[in-house]
Amino acid sequence: MNEVIETILNHRSIRSFKEQNLTAEQIETIVRSAQSASTSSFVQAYTIIGVNDREKKQRLAELAGEQSYVENNGHFFVFCGDLNRHRILAEMEDVNLQAPLESTEKFMVACIDAALAAQNAALAAESMGLGICYIGGIRNDLPVVCDLLSIPEGVLPLFGMAVGYPKKVTDKKPRLPLENIYHENGYNNDEASFKDQLIKYNETISAYYEERTDGARKDTWTGQMVHMIGAKSRMYMKEFVEQRNLNKR
Amino acid sequence: MNEVIETILNHRSIRSFKEQNLTAEQIETIVRSAQSASTSSFVQAYTIIGVNDREKKQRLAELAGEQSYVENNGHFFVFCGDLNRHRILAEMEDVNLQAPLESTEKFMVACIDAALAAQNAALAAESMGLGICYIGGIRNDLPVVCDLLSIPEGVLPLFGMAVGYPKKVTDKKPRLPLENIYHENGYNNDEASFKDQLIKYNETISAYYEERTDGARKDTWTGQMVHMIGAKSRMYMKEFVEQRNLNKR
Repeated sequence: MNEVIETILNHRSIRSFKEQNLTAEQIETIVRSAQSASTSSFVQAYTIIGVNDREKKQRLAELAGEQSYVENNGHFFVFCGDLNRHRILAEMEDVNLQAPLESTEKFMVACIDAALAAQNAALAAESMGLGICYIGGIRNDLPVVCDLLSIPEGVLPLFGMAVGYPKKVTDKKPRLPLENIYHENGYNNDEASFKDQLIKYNETISAYYEERTDGARKDTWTGQMVHMIGAKSRMYMKEFVEQRNLNKR
Repeated sequence: MNEVIETILNHRSIRSFKEQNLTAEQIETIVRSAQSASTSSFVQAYTIIGVNDREKKQRLAELAGEQSYVENNGHFFVFCGDLNRHRILAEMEDVNLQAPLESTEKFMVACIDAALAAQNAALAAESMGLGICYIGGIRNDLPVVCDLLSIPEGVLPLFGMAVGYPKKVTDKKPRLPLENIYHENGYNNDEASFKDQLIKYNETISAYYEERTDGARKDTWTGQMVHMIGAKSRMYMKEFVEQRNLNKR
């Protein structure tokens, strides 16, 4: 196994960081790594906002649901899907690109571009001995996040990423069985086998939690999912995204 | 610079592959690497479909716009956002999760989860001496792609990835200036400086194309973007995605 695959397979989210800021050089390496990712038709439809302002970090930590590691880390990044850049270049070229820039297709491109860049950033950081945690919690209240970071129309903060020197390293969580995620030549529509795989996976996850909590935590993956998805969080998203002139047509 | 960052910065899309299939072991390493990526609230909202059936690959190559490397490669992967798994587990747990599974929030989660996994897959492949190319072209005609791969409701193919041993290695394309992509503590809303950065970048891109084509190709980034975005491709996406019971509310 080479160093890249080792870094990839060794990933776990870090939620406790030492008080040591990233250097400017580390930040630059992380951003340049992000930029090296593939991008749909060279569109580069994302922007990364680095946050080191203490008050802004505090506010983001509150908004993300009192996640202290959003405030206490080596650097905090916010990854945004960005089609504002293309509105500006349309102005420069004296054309109107409003309709395609407001399309669901281009919204998907922006989400995917930003995520590809982010995963490069994550691995670059991890390869330098840093730990990372993606923060979906910034989507709890995007209107406030957009205000706080002066985000213009056509741009949507998608997730944050806390980066820093790990204080406490956690265990790796077992993933879904490979055959449940990977199908060959067509989707596996045999629901019985699909369910069997999930039942098997529930056993793996139950054992994982029991072992880590000396038997205190009883949980399954499907149970956890029902609870999490059933909470119906962030149902304001469709309307808000459309207000930002994204995903509208 | 470590091996991980070197692999990341060395990325270029490969569009010409040797006739040598990936081994089962290589495919497994790539999929396990994909699965190691972070996933929003552990939701694992994606499925990867490996395609080695010759006729299906031919059809996908046509649909992607006559891209021969979709057919001729070591293995072809289709990355799908997947919330069908969660519909099935809701059935198992006897609850109704329809509303949140149809939300824009969960659609974004599925797009982001799939892209994070894909970028891990890409880097794992590249670290093994393979080349990759993301194929957004499968979105040209998703109804047909969904038929071809028996994709159920709640699942959306997002992009393909051709993987194989590179026959021809191309140059790396220069990215947007770092300061245009990376802002600190808030979005750079100074449009004059933003435009200056794009003008400077146009010069970089023009020089890049001129050098590679002995002066034959005159192009700028903003010109290229106006052409590509102005083509208004895939404007059927919003309606189609909603028909799949995604991004609906």
